Formats: sequence, structure tokens, C-alpha cells
Amino acid sequence: MTNRVIRIAELPKGALSPEHFDLQSGVMPAPEKGEVLLRTLYMSIDAANRSWMQGATYREAVKAGDPMPTYALCEVVESKSDRLATGDLVACESSWSDFITRPARLCQKLPRTEQLSHLMSIYGIAGKTAFHGLVSVGRPIAGETVLVSAAAGSVGIYVGQIAKALGCRVVGIAGGPEKCAWVVDELGFDACIDYRDPGMFKALRAACPNGVDVYFDNVGGQILETALFVMNERGRVVCCGAISQYDTESVTGPRNLPGLVVVKRLRMEGFIVMDFAHQDKTAIRALQTWVAQGKIKVVEDIVEGLENAPAALIGLLAGDNKGKRLVHVANPQGPAGAGN
Amino acid sequence: MTNRVIRIAELPKGALSPEHFDLQSGVMPAPEKGEVLLRTLYMSIDAANRSWMQGATYREAVKAGDPMPTYALCEVVESKSDRLATGDLVACESSWSDFITRPARLCQKLPRTEQLSHLMSIYGIAGKTAFHGLVSVGRPIAGETVLVSAAAGSVGIYVGQIAKALGCRVVGIAGGPEKCAWVVDELGFDACIDYRDPGMFKALRAACPNGVDVYFDNVGGQILETALFVMNERGRVVCCGAISQYDTESVTGPRNLPGLVVVKRLRMEGFIVMDFAHQDKTAIRALQTWVAQGKIKVVEDIVEGLENAPAALIGLLAGDNKGKRLVHVANPQGPAGAGN
Repeated sequence: MTNRVIRIAELPKGALSPEHFDLQSGVMPAPEKGEVLLRTLYMSIDAANRSWMQGATYREAVKAGDPMPTYALCEVVESKSDRLATGDLVACESSWSDFITRPARLCQKLPRTEQLSHLMSIYGIAGKTAFHGLVSVGRPIAGETVLVSAAAGSVGIYVGQIAKALGCRVVGIAGGPEKCAWVVDELGFDACIDYRDPGMFKALRAACPNGVDVYFDNVGGQILETALFVMNERGRVVCCGAISQYDTESVTGPRNLPGLVVVKRLRMEGFIVMDFAHQDKTAIRALQTWVAQGKIKVVEDIVEGLENAPAALIGLLAGDNKGKRLVHVANPQGPAGAGN
Repeated sequence: MTNRVIRIAELPKGALSPEHFDLQSGVMPAPEKGEVLLRTLYMSIDAANRSWMQGATYREAVKAGDPMPTYALCEVVESKSDRLATGDLVACESSWSDFITRPARLCQKLPRTEQLSHLMSIYGIAGKTAFHGLVSVGRPIAGETVLVSAAAGSVGIYVGQIAKALGCRVVGIAGGPEKCAWVVDELGFDACIDYRDPGMFKALRAACPNGVDVYFDNVGGQILETALFVMNERGRVVCCGAISQYDTESVTGPRNLPGLVVVKRLRMEGFIVMDFAHQDKTAIRALQTWVAQGKIKVVEDIVEGLENAPAALIGLLAGDNKGKRLVHVANPQGPAGAGN
């Protein structure tokens, strides 16, 4: 049996493209003591994957020759640890590959749910990031206006829907009229602004007649700059990501900083989902409640096949996904399939 | 008796210069019901004065033809209000003039202290801004490293000395080797970096071997950008002002935002001294305590004569002051001097 692995052929300087990746077939890895052999089921495709190629972040920088790292949902095929058994479902830092060995202590065991992919979307990093960032960092109050960029993205769709469930006016920012219409019609946002529209600033002002109290920033750059102008006094900017800055060499900053931060007494605060791990149970329960109540729709964008992972990431950076993008690699086989 | 008033002749587009001001002599103003006639004693010269000429901030924009606004310490010459009596000392929003009339309800009565100028420096906006911004927004803890820009300026000298009193390592940023030496030798900072030095970033790293926990930003622009790189995780950026951005047309932003804010989970927060007015008594008591204990030195830079106010402000924007810059206009005459 062979194992396919997608490695970084060369680190990108500008935009990411297929030649930066290299799919190779090799031998199956064998777990050592304390390790497990894992079958990849779903891989999470995130803008942050691209930022890892820019240098050290909250994790080590990715180098040429490395297997492309990813967060993944996997099934234990073989275990050399007491912690996990064949057939267990785990989430872990993995790589773009059919199989991988990992220390069992670095794998988080998950319950089997009806829709496994939900563990990687609403009940995974995307949903938890949206919940913790909005609730714990942004702290919106019913009646306030919440603005979210990358509104049709994996995190944005939940930020907006959570804010609606909390009683806020919700305005999204997304790319193109079709996506904007979808965010309003399908997800129930009050409005959605197309950032490619030259009249964006006016449209934003019109959509936020009472200004913006919480801006959930997934993109950075010029959209952040524009958003600062519509913030209310005591507004909060939740700094979640900077997708506009990852896939480019020409990084631009919000030029109106810190002037507006002072004048409007803004709070800009960065966070990472792991910072709030102690509140994950609360987040999951809240999300499950809203899903059961029909207040939150789960939207997934699933790409089939490990070999399509590079295209899935490149497309995500170009903004062609709606909701959480995953790559489906294999179905679980359960304990009986172990070792086959 | 005539009253001298300095008006804005023309709003500056680039750097401020003397021709943007016009000194005129006119008749003495007369107070109406509810108003007081005030004699200007000291005028506060602040970088913020320049920012008022850029457009509306936390106050209305200043327009061509307006008397140049200022915060001032004044003596009541004549009162048509029950609130104030001749000879009372007040602080108020005033203008660059010998005399002015103001509604009595907008004047804050102050106690007569031995050194009147202290009411406009350490016990005025500068000292309170330093205290509230550092203590309530930055929240440094003994053993942490506090970095402050415009370290020799009116607010910076107190930020650093308060941080030292709280047990922090304190590093300043100032312009030129002479000022830097003064900040260390005279004010007791642990180190001070010259921002004009091309090796500034290395010097900053060397002066902050444990990174920076609180950066008190008075300047914005490239120094803010540089400071973000040396911040520790969970660091706090106190956004107090952006002096580097006021006297120029080419506003630059920190280009590493929000990437670093996310990765390092920074909190950047703007504030204005009035936001913490409810804690002013606590601030004054703390500052008096530290002054009495010899832990804080009061440094003032007093320019003599109303007619020198334009040069005093232009010079301040070029960074040639040490400590709080004031313009001394007149001495108090007490109740006996009323109407003379």
C-alpha cells in the first residue's frame, strides 16, 4: 500500500500557484511507541495555511520540501498507545497525505457525529473562532451593529449568524454581487457590501446608518482601513485574520492608525481560537442550540480528493468558496477496517 | 485696554509655519450673563493642537479665521455668574489671547497651588493622560517592560516615571542622543533609543531583552510599526496620539497590521484623558504621592509671551521641547486686580 503526500516544492513569493506543490507517492509510515497511524478523512483548507508560508506565526514557518501542514479529521488505523484505539476519530495537526503517524498525545479524540464534516466546520475551528472572537473579544450587545468581512467565508458565515441570534444588526462584506446576495438571502444578514464595488464606502455608510460597534476583521488591509472610518466611539475591532495580506508581497497598512483609534477610543484586539479553549464546551453548546433552533445554517464547501487540495487552497485565497472549505480524502472504515 | 488674539490665517497643508498665524489687537471682550472675563495665565502647547487643524476629532475642526484654540489656566477678572468670583483660578478651553469671555459653567475651578504651572503639567492634562493611559489602559505589572515614545515630551516623561514607580523596566524613544541621555540620566529611564538612529530596531531589541509588554504610543507611523515587532504576546498598545502623522500630508500606516495583532494577540486601545475624569482624584493623589517621595520629577518647558505661541507650537512639532511646554502669558493679579 502506498501513501500519497503533497509537499511544498518551493515557497511562494507572490500568489500561490500549483507549481508550488508536489504530489509524491511513498511507503506507508509505521507508528512507533506512543504513536498512532492515522487515515485522513477531511482536511481543513484555511487562509491561515498560506500565512504559514510567510514565516513563523503562532507555529513554525513552513519550509520548501515539507509536507504541507493542515488541520485534519482522521481515523486511527493502528495504535501503539494506550490513549487511542483503532477506529477512534481524532482531530490533529497533520499534513496533506492519505496517512500519517502522530504521537497519540497530540491527537484530540472526538465523538462520532452523524455528519463528520461538521466536526471540521461549525463544531471545529471555524465555528469556535467565530464564537470566541465575536462573543469574548467583540462583545456585541443586542441592537448594536456588527460588521464582518469575508462574510461568506468559513468564519464569517458564523460570525454573522451568531450576531443575528444575539439581536444585532449584521452587515457583511464579501466579493461580488452573487456572494453578497447569497449572504443576505441564505444566511439572513441585514445587508452585504461588495468590496469590489468602487462605491463601497458609500454603500457601507448607507448599510450602517448607526455606525459600526463591532468589526470582525478577517481581511486586514484596505477594508480594515475603510471600516475604521465607520466605527462608532468605543467600537471594537476583532482582529481574526488578514487574508488580504497573505498572498502578496505588497503589504499595506491601515493608514488612519492610530489617529482614529485614539479619537474614537477604539479597541483592536487580536486572538487565536486556542486562547479560548477553556470555553470550547460553552461555544459548542451554544452553536448546537442555535442550529437546533434553526437560527444558524451550516454551510460547507467540500472538495473531493487529496490531489485537489492545492487547487482548493488557491481557489480559497481567490475567494471562490462559500462557507467552510474542506477536502474529503477518505471515509472512515471503523475498527474492522484496521490495517487493511 | 486692548486684547491681543492670535488667529489662524490659513490652514496648513504640510508643515505648520509662522505665516499660518496672525496676531491682532482688538477691544476687550465683555462678559454677558452667565459668563466670566478671563485673563490668560498659562496656555498649554500640545501636539494635539496641530491635529485639530486636520479636521474634526473629539472636537470640531479649527477653521481659517478662528482664534487658535488652546487649553489654558486663567484668572477670573470679572464675573457675571454665581458660579465664579473675581480672582478665581480656572482651567478651560480657551484661545491664544490675553483675555477671553467664557460661560462660567464651562470653566473648571482649581485650587491655588504654590506653583501654578504644575496645574497645567503634572496635575493637568499631561500628568493625568500619562496616569490614566498607562494605569487603566496599559495595565503594566512590576517586572514588565514598558516602552514609551516621545519619551522626553509632556506625557512621555510621566509615563516613564510612573512605570518606574510601579516597578517596571522602562525604555524610552526620543529624538537625538542628547535628549536620550537626558531621559536616562535625569528621569531615570533604564534606556532610551534615538529614533533618528538608522540602527534603531537593533538598539530597541537590545534595550528590551525580554520584549515589550506595554507600548505607550504617542507618535504612530513608523515607530508604531517598529514597536509592534518587539511586542510580547498579550502585549498592550496604548494609543495616545500620533504626533508623527499630524504635521504632514503623507500619512503612513503600520504595515504589519493586523497580522501581528492577531499572531501576538495584542490589544491596541485608544483613549482620551476625559474618558477617565471620574478617576482624576485618584490620579492626582498618586502623582502627588510620587512627587513627594521623589520618585517623579516635574519638568516644564515654559516659553515667555503670548506672541511666541506660534513658534512654541512649531518647535514642539519639531521636537525641541523637554517636558511639558507652556506659554506664560501673564501673572495672576488676585481679586484686587479685577478690572484694572
